[in-house]
Amino acid sequence: MAVYTELNADTLAALIGAYDVGELVSAKGIAEGVSNSNWLIETTGRDGTGGRFILTMYERRIDLDELPFFLGLLDHLSARGCPVPRTIHDRAGAAYRWIDKKAVALIEFLPGISVDHPSPAQAHAVGAALAGVHLAAADFGESRPQTLGLAAWRSTAAECTLAGMENIAQGLGETVFAELDYLDVHWPQGLPSGVSHCDLFPDNVLMLGERVTGLIDFYFAASDAFAYDLAVTHAAWCFADGEQSLRLDIAEALVAGYQTVRALSAAEIAALPILARGAAMRFLTSRAFDWIHTPADALVTRKDPLDFTRRLACYRQAGAKAFPGLGI
Amino acid sequence: MAVYTELNADTLAALIGAYDVGELVSAKGIAEGVSNSNWLIETTGRDGTGGRFILTMYERRIDLDELPFFLGLLDHLSARGCPVPRTIHDRAGAAYRWIDKKAVALIEFLPGISVDHPSPAQAHAVGAALAGVHLAAADFGESRPQTLGLAAWRSTAAECTLAGMENIAQGLGETVFAELDYLDVHWPQGLPSGVSHCDLFPDNVLMLGERVTGLIDFYFAASDAFAYDLAVTHAAWCFADGEQSLRLDIAEALVAGYQTVRALSAAEIAALPILARGAAMRFLTSRAFDWIHTPADALVTRKDPLDFTRRLACYRQAGAKAFPGLGI
Repeated sequence: MAVYTELNADTLAALIGAYDVGELVSAKGIAEGVSNSNWLIETTGRDGTGGRFILTMYERRIDLDELPFFLGLLDHLSARGCPVPRTIHDRAGAAYRWIDKKAVALIEFLPGISVDHPSPAQAHAVGAALAGVHLAAADFGESRPQTLGLAAWRSTAAECTLAGMENIAQGLGETVFAELDYLDVHWPQGLPSGVSHCDLFPDNVLMLGERVTGLIDFYFAASDAFAYDLAVTHAAWCFADGEQSLRLDIAEALVAGYQTVRALSAAEIAALPILARGAAMRFLTSRAFDWIHTPADALVTRKDPLDFTRRLACYRQAGAKAFPGLGI
Repeated sequence: MAVYTELNADTLAALIGAYDVGELVSAKGIAEGVSNSNWLIETTGRDGTGGRFILTMYERRIDLDELPFFLGLLDHLSARGCPVPRTIHDRAGAAYRWIDKKAVALIEFLPGISVDHPSPAQAHAVGAALAGVHLAAADFGESRPQTLGLAAWRSTAAECTLAGMENIAQGLGETVFAELDYLDVHWPQGLPSGVSHCDLFPDNVLMLGERVTGLIDFYFAASDAFAYDLAVTHAAWCFADGEQSLRLDIAEALVAGYQTVRALSAAEIAALPILARGAAMRFLTSRAFDWIHTPADALVTRKDPLDFTRRLACYRQAGAKAFPGLGI
């Protein structure tokens, strides 16, 4: 969480002047996003009643060729009624602009707070919102290949090396490579798929009470199996930090909420246990990589890969029991 | 600039519930403040029309016994019409509360942007606003001794050691101790004094166009000579970053603006050149200390002490010429 770039008042005012959003009133760098700088922007609004926006500057990681996909997806989902912030286009219609060779986008501000200890009712709402995205994205017309799928987990693990992972925790390297071999053999094919969020952690969901007011940070969105996206969300929501046991009430509510909007097929339901193991591997491998390649004293906070080692162990042990209420 | 503490949704909602400000709608950690964590908070407001606040958590440096002084000063100045954010008191009337043994205060949000390249008209407005604080603080009734005055500069320099400062830049140690000797002998006494901001850098001033909408961050406020506070503001505003020369148009406008609200005495005017040397020493010594005692790769950004080495040299060379339009 950081603001990597300082924007001076003149630059900001000139930028905001390129949009039909009124005059700049306030700008505060906010501590969100790992790869981007973000500001909470207030303006007088088009009609003088005020407007608020998130200004995002894309610092790294994101391939700029993909920016039209990400920003277009926001607009598409927002127009379909999903609680997703729309992109504000400038007076010339552009979805993003440039400041000092960095792309910036002005994005609708949505109210809401990220929950830390979700209730079943909140998880139910999140499941429903995720299914809403899956349905609404169907006619988006653009796609983005999944660059962080099974093959990527293996190549990331290889870059970590067996020894590097053993340095993080004894036995981790062996566990990871054995799991990759298992997933290679058993990974389900042919499940219903389409544009998926693929990173719907609690900090990417804004809520007011039991209502989802915002789904944000679609920068890992890609075409993948919908049930995998649900499994990622399961892995992200159904464990309290540091806990090694599943919250089965949250798990059941999440999937039930999903199915109020989009029914899962029998094949999807059967695949959920292994998809959840894959979801744990997705974050375990990327976090192990970051852990090994980020100095302990760097500005960026390293996320502990062992959080997902525990979740992987949990999914391997629980099997279908991690998905109660589905009859598997 | 950092957010040192994470506040979860439940804690935040409980905190906001202790104030008569409506329901919590949004909370974003903002990248402001070196010693505190800050959040931009939005609520439904007492009457449902919305409210915005800065939530500050005091992480370190501030002596909590002094918090009533700082927060009371905000309320006093705000009530006197200064563009200063007032403290929101909780339902029981308390100006601050506790979260996990850390004090937190809810403070009025003020619009405005910090300027980087001030115009003379903006500097004029800042001078007038500073004088307004000096006048308005007269009947505040509380005071706080200046803990970062001449004696502190010497003890800070001693802690840096001559060798430590020479490590920053050749000749720096000798310059600092020679300057301290000079200031000891020539430092003016008996000037009009009272509660002063003592840290009015551009990032502590919010502006909309040529209007000052907010003076913030009073956590260095102390009883000192008003003309010294003006000299600090001069040192903070009249040099472009990296420039070694004074912006005389800004200097003249700043002091002229000040005098539209509070006339300087002949003794104050005569003292400004040496007070400005002292102001440069104030920041030179504290930055040198931080530079020596903060690892280069620490989370906190070190501010370059050489910025103020250059300003000190400039003031020593310019003398009264740094204060045009005053007939000195």
